[in-house]
Amino acid sequence: MSESEKHTFSVLVENRFGVLSRIAGLFSTRGYNIDSLVVSPTENKNYSRMTVVTHGDENILEQIRKQLNKLVEVVQVTDLTGSGFISRELMLLKVSTTESNRSEIIQIAGVFKANIVNVQKDSLVIEVTGSSPKLDAFEQLMTTYGIIELARTGKVALSRSSVPTELDESDDSE
Amino acid sequence: MSESEKHTFSVLVENRFGVLSRIAGLFSTRGYNIDSLVVSPTENKNYSRMTVVTHGDENILEQIRKQLNKLVEVVQVTDLTGSGFISRELMLLKVSTTESNRSEIIQIAGVFKANIVNVQKDSLVIEVTGSSPKLDAFEQLMTTYGIIELARTGKVALSRSSVPTELDESDDSE
Repeated sequence: MSESEKHTFSVLVENRFGVLSRIAGLFSTRGYNIDSLVVSPTENKNYSRMTVVTHGDENILEQIRKQLNKLVEVVQVTDLTGSGFISRELMLLKVSTTESNRSEIIQIAGVFKANIVNVQKDSLVIEVTGSSPKLDAFEQLMTTYGIIELARTGKVALSRSSVPTELDESDDSE
Repeated sequence: MSESEKHTFSVLVENRFGVLSRIAGLFSTRGYNIDSLVVSPTENKNYSRMTVVTHGDENILEQIRKQLNKLVEVVQVTDLTGSGFISRELMLLKVSTTESNRSEIIQIAGVFKANIVNVQKDSLVIEVTGSSPKLDAFEQLMTTYGIIELARTGKVALSRSSVPTELDESDDSE
């Protein structure tokens, strides 16, 4: 579906005040969609990394890339779509349980290599880590039992090979 | 330290266009700090959940709570600080390796129940999940070897007990 492809942008930004607000404003005033967004510290205290999952046709994605690069706080924009990167997401999910289905749910969690982090009389809290489709599949399965509450972190990603950036002064010439 | 306590707010918002921009704007125009922020889908397609980690004195935190509640898109603001919630964060970390220290790094990763997700001749990509202090400790240890790239998701959290919300129509009367 080239009409509405999902793309993941990793945006390295300077830790200036209001930078999130300016980037969020860029997406909203221009009508770009945000599927998920994560802002968090990096290995360098002067920079933050934003991982934005968005969708749109090739034209819109190109516009987003250009507009991001125009912002003075933006150091680097990397399009992490494709096979050259490792992406992970985390989900905490509270599912409704009964005496009779608890062990079944724990078995399913085991198949997904998920951890049970809290057990109550009538609910379990499960932590699952993996690719977004894996988390979608687990969420789908748990719907049958009744999801009480759910929180996902959104996707973060790293390139598979070492990409030297402004933050990475190490010799990468193999 | 009551001067600058870290607080985690879980904000349930309607999935209206520009809601992230309005909330980011609220923080920046009023000078509130954002340590990390996660926006992601919930179990209900009409709502998103924002998890914001911020710091400030009691007065500022109270202001943030009030200002958030004033926004029409905000359905519910929960202060997740304290022991009543389960919080998790995920980190992907690419660390520089040599022939001689690789196995040492893999051992340390084992102690932290971290997963090795990619192995290159001169680097490893490691996935760690846990509380923020655990991730801080792991990051600190890896600094010795040389962190090439790092991405953290920021914190997401669920309450330990079942809190009935607008999204949760189930009978919670035990």
